[in-house]
Amino acid sequence: MLLNGRPSRTLWPAHGADAVMVLDQRALPHRVETIALRSVDDAIHAIAEMVVRGAPLIGVTAAYGLALQTRADAGDASLQLAARRLKAARPTAVNLAWAVDLALAQLLRHAPRERAAASWAFAAQLADDDAAVNERLGVHGFALLRALAARQPARRLNVLTHCNAGWLATVDWGTALAPIYRAQAEGLAVHVWVDETRPRNQGASLTAFELREQGVPHTVIADNAGGHLMQRGEVDAVIVGCDRVTACGDVANKIGTYLKALAARDCGVPFWVAMPLSTLDRSLHDGVVEIPIEERRAREVTHLSGRARDGSTVEVQLVPDGTAALNPAFDVTPARLVTGLITERGVVPATREGIAGLFDPHPAGAP
Amino acid sequence: MLLNGRPSRTLWPAHGADAVMVLDQRALPHRVETIALRSVDDAIHAIAEMVVRGAPLIGVTAAYGLALQTRADAGDASLQLAARRLKAARPTAVNLAWAVDLALAQLLRHAPRERAAASWAFAAQLADDDAAVNERLGVHGFALLRALAARQPARRLNVLTHCNAGWLATVDWGTALAPIYRAQAEGLAVHVWVDETRPRNQGASLTAFELREQGVPHTVIADNAGGHLMQRGEVDAVIVGCDRVTACGDVANKIGTYLKALAARDCGVPFWVAMPLSTLDRSLHDGVVEIPIEERRAREVTHLSGRARDGSTVEVQLVPDGTAALNPAFDVTPARLVTGLITERGVVPATREGIAGLFDPHPAGAP
Repeated sequence: MLLNGRPSRTLWPAHGADAVMVLDQRALPHRVETIALRSVDDAIHAIAEMVVRGAPLIGVTAAYGLALQTRADAGDASLQLAARRLKAARPTAVNLAWAVDLALAQLLRHAPRERAAASWAFAAQLADDDAAVNERLGVHGFALLRALAARQPARRLNVLTHCNAGWLATVDWGTALAPIYRAQAEGLAVHVWVDETRPRNQGASLTAFELREQGVPHTVIADNAGGHLMQRGEVDAVIVGCDRVTACGDVANKIGTYLKALAARDCGVPFWVAMPLSTLDRSLHDGVVEIPIEERRAREVTHLSGRARDGSTVEVQLVPDGTAALNPAFDVTPARLVTGLITERGVVPATREGIAGLFDPHPAGAP
Repeated sequence: MLLNGRPSRTLWPAHGADAVMVLDQRALPHRVETIALRSVDDAIHAIAEMVVRGAPLIGVTAAYGLALQTRADAGDASLQLAARRLKAARPTAVNLAWAVDLALAQLLRHAPRERAAASWAFAAQLADDDAAVNERLGVHGFALLRALAARQPARRLNVLTHCNAGWLATVDWGTALAPIYRAQAEGLAVHVWVDETRPRNQGASLTAFELREQGVPHTVIADNAGGHLMQRGEVDAVIVGCDRVTACGDVANKIGTYLKALAARDCGVPFWVAMPLSTLDRSLHDGVVEIPIEERRAREVTHLSGRARDGSTVEVQLVPDGTAALNPAFDVTPARLVTGLITERGVVPATREGIAGLFDPHPAGAP
């Protein structure tokens, strides 16, 4: 990823490993600010308040949170409690639980006095792995885009994305945007339709910000506009990220994803989900019934922050006084609407068989 | 309609008929302000800038606009030019052209010196007719809601609506909300899910405002949330208004309507369109291909106004500097997704035959 034209990451351990620096995503797109996380409480707060967000990034942040806790108390009870609290910071994304469980299991194998060093090394490895996995998503997703582009050589590809599943949602590269960045690197002309993504506007603020930093052509649209653009042939593919995918391929992702999947199906547009394997929850089957959906504060719907003319950040109220609002943060797109899952091991159908094949040591098509 | 607890209308001729008073819908929901329209230019400005909006209301406002022009110059050329300019103020809603053509044809039958009186009388009649038509929509739509409620007597009905097709979009009663107000009058418990309706937030501001004034329980949601609520069984019916309906039943309405229609179909929820006959354009057939879709300023997407903590109205920027946006204001919902059209003459299927039957002097089922 490029920030102000320089290669960067969304989080990094600070010198001396007494803190983790993160980009404060609440300040974007108007200000680039970093925050130092110095304790597990800081990490929990950063996850819950969406200082950091995006399923992969909150997983890595949580692993660093455990590492920070080893400085305070590296005993079993201390780390187990910290792990529970980290996992509860946000309920929908499975990467969070996955990263915390993995980190905790690693740490408990070590003697308490070795845990600080082990935990920092583990978190750093998790961060590197995330970047590497996302780079692979980019390679596999790019192959899909290249095939689409070959059918219409005369004009650029238009890809629609919802929310932010770019490098700001990960350590680097992003998930849904990794194929776009790979396409850019390979010289394939791609334009991105960026869903605003109410109520938190991650598309209008974060995705637009990172595509601009990266120099990828893009246009912000209201979430309501995507179906119309698909009807008019203005969308060649939809690529979204995900927060949890069931063994059958049902996809929990940012609220509104389901509506775009329905429109893609109705208009014959491919709908792909970029899914690092860490996002898979093979213990679940029917996503609509089984995946818990986080309900966030009504105020995220009724109020909104932006940059006023004088440059200050101002929160404004959108509704009449006393108006109630409901704010489910995710929805579930049934597998039947998903054209394919883009994973670090290749693209597979969103079916039980397709997903099981990712874990088959001797896949049918292998040499 | 009730405003501050008192029966009111959205526009009315001022004493002496030298002006038309309208509620300034841009100031809602935070301030109730009226504006005097004193010339056809004022009327055109009010329509184009959405001081008044809603297909029925802009039709009536345009008829008053012609009346205002008779004060300046009641000659044929003057009125014909005014009519052309009024019709061009907004391109998608067919009621505007319908009302202007009707008013102009009426006026040109009179001698110029009679036209002022005739035009004011005609506009007043159009306003009364709109209120009466909408009251009938309410009666027919209520019958649908009552039948739904009979299937689940233990809990209140949940109706989702998009944009504002309430009394603020008409002279009185509203179109999509008329069945809700009728249900309220008849003692049927209804709760309304109010789509925020980006980018202009007519749901969060106007629909929430008028439902509050009227005392109807309601909850604002992001446009993205409707599909999720339908999946979870939280929506019993969708009722929306429309800006233009083709002879085959394709429906142009506020951008995002198509996405809700897709979700309703996927979840088995009835999707009804409240359609005064003035909204029908029998000259068109394939709505997706033939209905012109107004593209509005990008700034409506990139910036947003609301009430700051100090009570002032502040416009804030949502996107990074230099971000492009596209702002199609309407989309087209294909007839196949529409459960039925609620008209002043009853509820009919959204088919060529269903619509033709509205104009059949001897309907098959008549006594």
